[in-house]
Amino acid sequence: MQFRFIQLRYFCNVLFFLQQELKVFRIGCHIHLIIAVFTQITFMQHPLGKLIAIGGAEDKGVEPEKGELVRSNLNFFELGILRRIVEEAGGPNKRMEVITTASMIPYEVGENYLNAFGKIGCTNIGIMPIRNRADAMNDQYIERIRACNAVMFSGGNQLRLSATFGGTEMLQIALERYNDEENFIVAGTSAGAMAMSNTMIYEGNATRAHLKGEVKITTGLGFMDDVIFDSHFEKRGRFGRLAQAIATNPSCVGIGLGEDTGMLITEGNKMEAIGSGLVIIIDGHSIRHNNIADIPEGNPISIENLKVHFCEKGNGFLVKEREFLPDADMASMITNKAV
Amino acid sequence: MQFRFIQLRYFCNVLFFLQQELKVFRIGCHIHLIIAVFTQITFMQHPLGKLIAIGGAEDKGVEPEKGELVRSNLNFFELGILRRIVEEAGGPNKRMEVITTASMIPYEVGENYLNAFGKIGCTNIGIMPIRNRADAMNDQYIERIRACNAVMFSGGNQLRLSATFGGTEMLQIALERYNDEENFIVAGTSAGAMAMSNTMIYEGNATRAHLKGEVKITTGLGFMDDVIFDSHFEKRGRFGRLAQAIATNPSCVGIGLGEDTGMLITEGNKMEAIGSGLVIIIDGHSIRHNNIADIPEGNPISIENLKVHFCEKGNGFLVKEREFLPDADMASMITNKAV
Repeated sequence: MQFRFIQLRYFCNVLFFLQQELKVFRIGCHIHLIIAVFTQITFMQHPLGKLIAIGGAEDKGVEPEKGELVRSNLNFFELGILRRIVEEAGGPNKRMEVITTASMIPYEVGENYLNAFGKIGCTNIGIMPIRNRADAMNDQYIERIRACNAVMFSGGNQLRLSATFGGTEMLQIALERYNDEENFIVAGTSAGAMAMSNTMIYEGNATRAHLKGEVKITTGLGFMDDVIFDSHFEKRGRFGRLAQAIATNPSCVGIGLGEDTGMLITEGNKMEAIGSGLVIIIDGHSIRHNNIADIPEGNPISIENLKVHFCEKGNGFLVKEREFLPDADMASMITNKAV
Repeated sequence: MQFRFIQLRYFCNVLFFLQQELKVFRIGCHIHLIIAVFTQITFMQHPLGKLIAIGGAEDKGVEPEKGELVRSNLNFFELGILRRIVEEAGGPNKRMEVITTASMIPYEVGENYLNAFGKIGCTNIGIMPIRNRADAMNDQYIERIRACNAVMFSGGNQLRLSATFGGTEMLQIALERYNDEENFIVAGTSAGAMAMSNTMIYEGNATRAHLKGEVKITTGLGFMDDVIFDSHFEKRGRFGRLAQAIATNPSCVGIGLGEDTGMLITEGNKMEAIGSGLVIIIDGHSIRHNNIADIPEGNPISIENLKVHFCEKGNGFLVKEREFLPDADMASMITNKAV
């Protein structure tokens, strides 16, 4: 989107220059009109690529939360979701790059993905076990991001993703391709899903998430605005944590992704629930009373009027319109609609 | 309420008898009017006693959920809440009976309560370690329920409470005293709170609560209609379970009680949040789409438009009006208002 906006600015500058040079009042008026129309069109433009955010599971390398079993990423979600990613990318021959940066055991997680995608007939999978910003600037990786059909961010720690890729050429290329290319897919599971949006939760203990200050937020990879993703949603009881994130950022919609469950997002707005579980949506637009600005850290928050939806497979949601689409066919039709 | 209704019926019968005997049309009309007015007044009547439902904690005798520490009831909640119960009952000299039936270690839990109430100067505490229906029919216990100023149900398993007391004289006396006597207190923590309403959750694993049929509901002790209580709410991530209970019973309001947190309820309607944590309210009145009647057991539920409020200490909620009261003074004023 940034890239397109820069292009527009150049275009506008050229028009202004022409207007100045011609010094003709009527032509000037026409040019003004043309500028206004183009500005409108550009602001209405939406990303042409697709996002797939999956509630997934944390991979083996990450400390599990209290009492939870340590399990591999891929034991959690059905191959059905991977199949959907492959299908959306254009089939099993398309090139997909799996970025395992979020994980502390990037090679093992990479192997898991190779196996899982292999099972559904995909052999054109690359693994990028990028450890730091220096790695992220490696020309070879940058070229691969330019050439692939889909990128997938694995689970782990979302702060590793934002800290490693924020401001890099590699992320910029992925963002541009997502904005400009139809069928370019950006998928993410667990931490990989949480990092997709501009506003990202990076910490928040579920059992204390009702206390002000317990939910930590920073800037994510920026593939989407106006949403906050959370993962492992029911399993880890994260309703309070996403609700606090929304209470402090009511311009965003909270998307609580269950395990083995995801949202396929087209046009940066139209969501379709996929997978076997639930996506819980928290809409803070109608919040009335909200004490979060007035109380000290560590005190319980008070919120009136959160609107909540439970989406199962096939239900849809429009982010800008904040509209729940109960009809599976309708949602599917909308998300698959050619842009 | 039942008792009052029976009284009204006798009164109405007497009026009808008079109407028949007098055979005077005009007097008949007046009597009709009087009956209508009395019926109206009686149906508007509300319980005079108070309920205190606390999110509490399960006591030592109950199997803890996976990964959770086994802790005693009383380690969980602040003496502040016990103080409030004592205050509402009329002071530390008033007689309180603690019913430890829900627990598998009723004597130990009883001792804990004696100690805790002792610390705040209450020495007039009785323990009722009732194990079964035969115990519940013991005349001595029945007399004690007639004589006390407050009853408190401990934590444990709410099904033990409903199965032991349902239909007993002891419960009937407690219900009548709650309906008819100002300052008669019925308190309950954890299972004791969940059993208070007519519609009671008795089972539901939090991590699978988004699947139809995973949340089991039965009839509770019936101190309150049109609400479903849940306890340990944030700590055990029970949002999905209460949401399912509300989706299947949208005439009820869900009251999700956090630990060390409770609702003081007057007139069977007016709630004031007390304690250090949160009460999360789920209102299903505006639900639009809801697939629960159409899907097979074990499938994820889909719900559009749950309304959710977070109440901290001092916030209020009116159940019949489904109205959140953000102003602490306002809520407190309402719940303390003389009936």
